[in-house]
Amino acid sequence: MASLLHQIRHQSVTIDRPLPLDSGQALPSVTIAYQSYGTLNADRSNAVLVCHALTGDQYVASDHPATGKPGWWARMVGPGKPVDTDRYFVLCANVLGSCMGTSGPATPDAATGAPLGMAFPVITIADMVRAQAMLLDHLGIARLHAVIGGSMGGMQTLGWAAAYPERLASAVVIASAARHSAQNIAFHEVGRQAIMADPDWQDGQYYGSDRAPTKGLSVARMAAHITYLSEAGLTEKFGRRLQARDAKSFGFDADFQVESYLRHQGLAFTDRFDANAYLYITRAMDYFDLAEPYDGRLAGAFAKARDVRFTLVSFDTDWLYPTSESRRVVQALQSVGAAASFVELSAPFGHDSFLLDVPALDRLVAGALRNGG
Amino acid sequence: MASLLHQIRHQSVTIDRPLPLDSGQALPSVTIAYQSYGTLNADRSNAVLVCHALTGDQYVASDHPATGKPGWWARMVGPGKPVDTDRYFVLCANVLGSCMGTSGPATPDAATGAPLGMAFPVITIADMVRAQAMLLDHLGIARLHAVIGGSMGGMQTLGWAAAYPERLASAVVIASAARHSAQNIAFHEVGRQAIMADPDWQDGQYYGSDRAPTKGLSVARMAAHITYLSEAGLTEKFGRRLQARDAKSFGFDADFQVESYLRHQGLAFTDRFDANAYLYITRAMDYFDLAEPYDGRLAGAFAKARDVRFTLVSFDTDWLYPTSESRRVVQALQSVGAAASFVELSAPFGHDSFLLDVPALDRLVAGALRNGG
Repeated sequence: MASLLHQIRHQSVTIDRPLPLDSGQALPSVTIAYQSYGTLNADRSNAVLVCHALTGDQYVASDHPATGKPGWWARMVGPGKPVDTDRYFVLCANVLGSCMGTSGPATPDAATGAPLGMAFPVITIADMVRAQAMLLDHLGIARLHAVIGGSMGGMQTLGWAAAYPERLASAVVIASAARHSAQNIAFHEVGRQAIMADPDWQDGQYYGSDRAPTKGLSVARMAAHITYLSEAGLTEKFGRRLQARDAKSFGFDADFQVESYLRHQGLAFTDRFDANAYLYITRAMDYFDLAEPYDGRLAGAFAKARDVRFTLVSFDTDWLYPTSESRRVVQALQSVGAAASFVELSAPFGHDSFLLDVPALDRLVAGALRNGG
Repeated sequence: MASLLHQIRHQSVTIDRPLPLDSGQALPSVTIAYQSYGTLNADRSNAVLVCHALTGDQYVASDHPATGKPGWWARMVGPGKPVDTDRYFVLCANVLGSCMGTSGPATPDAATGAPLGMAFPVITIADMVRAQAMLLDHLGIARLHAVIGGSMGGMQTLGWAAAYPERLASAVVIASAARHSAQNIAFHEVGRQAIMADPDWQDGQYYGSDRAPTKGLSVARMAAHITYLSEAGLTEKFGRRLQARDAKSFGFDADFQVESYLRHQGLAFTDRFDANAYLYITRAMDYFDLAEPYDGRLAGAFAKARDVRFTLVSFDTDWLYPTSESRRVVQALQSVGAAASFVELSAPFGHDSFLLDVPALDRLVAGALRNGG
């Protein structure tokens, strides 16, 4: 599976400058795969950077090359949509460490030509943001109309405001947090252990072999997927309903619809994602704590972001990045005098609400972009 | 690991009568391992049955023979303790399907002598209760002063009230539910898939081999363990604190204390529990829905339990079996006119609160037993 994934050709640019990393290491050069929608205007002032989540990619509003499915935010990005490609030049780059064309653990070692695997350096959210800034430099975009993202995309958006406050007018942070909690780390660690427990993982050097840790990756995805949904949403969608045969098997097949759904989510994920990339990106998220360099004072991260217009959105059923984490960001922003609007939306879908049909979110995003320029 | 576990000798009784199962199958005979504390009085009216949770066992108040650790409820059961062994004859049996001496997947096939593995029939909570009733028959105990249990132990307690209402005076149900929710099933399914994805599982026939699915079982335990703790409890206990070396490794070692804690929980579990037993018992819990035989009307299950005194306790931070599930039980009990007292206790430990230092729980349990006779 993973080997098929790596045969897909993506639009990308290779920047032959070192990318310094938070670990102290550096990538000698970096390849960034990206998609763009709409047209950059003459004064290059209408660019909107969309940052994707853990398992997202640059195919925001175009069909996924592996699955053929519509872009993950096609409902939000397009002509006449909240992120209006008739008005904005919308850019989305596959994050550093991922598996859709940007430098990551499947990237060949410059010397040997063999995939780096676990020799790829551990990266952070700030490193992802630094790579995106290099892409913008390459494209000649000095300043962004807006940066927008949900979940890990929101972490990058916050990272943009902290690292390059002069380069963005507006930041839209959806269903996100300024740090990973102990529970967030715990769930990710379960996923990593599931992958590394799979003998087909082979210490990360499975790319050349005919085996990949699909079982471990599938279990990791199943565990994570539960955290993306609300308890009430799961109950409404599945409850205790049985599969079509409508009777308990008294065996270990998927009797309940929720079991079958989860198994499918796990398995389908392995067609479009690489296990090592999952290790690296979850690690980057767990390391994320925007307040850490400021002795735990989150306001420190926003000291120079006074002129950025912030919009924060949380969902009442999101227990992965609950409203309290968004409030914490808003308080830090207010303490430095930054303009921050915040709304908790009611939606039944849990964390995944940012990807789903929540009309109030569409209106908020459209408004944030109109006001942000 | 698992093979060492199965070498422990337990006090047990083999009852040479068939145990009919909900699946339609029957066990030709059943072995039940149990511990007792205190003395049965002359009129055999002071017996209290303690029902254990998923990974619990009969060693309520005595050291665990594999780990050497104190009994899992030693703080609750003993002389002068809330379940006072100076007054009550306290009995706890290892549940059907488990791995501490009671019939389960490690039990030898009567014909071949080889462990049954996945040929052991799938069992239910009602089957566990039926086996306990056979043990009481064997011991000549017609009626119990009380049945008490937390988590899956509470499910068995409710099952007792439904199946044998005339055989108990009092039922104490702690941190439990009358059914497994979609989210409950989902987490268990992740654990089962982790075990079955481990090649050392060998379709359940690992007992004779030198390999057991300890990695899969460990991942299953890690995922489950998160659900036993509250988010706030995890944050208070671990937060984002790093291990002793006090710096991020920029690698995949356990950097955060919560990672190291979870890995330890996973690994230590494999010393005292059998992977197949985990499959069978989680299945029994997922199948549990006391209202199912009554067209979803929970009150139907309690129609004959009017004379049982119920005490229900939930914990405000328990998101595995939240207070709403206890309330649902109380409403059903009230609708049939059964005496039901219900308290939601405040405790920071999440679901695990029923095992930990919550003095208010001690008082409630002591009171329920005194009033129940």
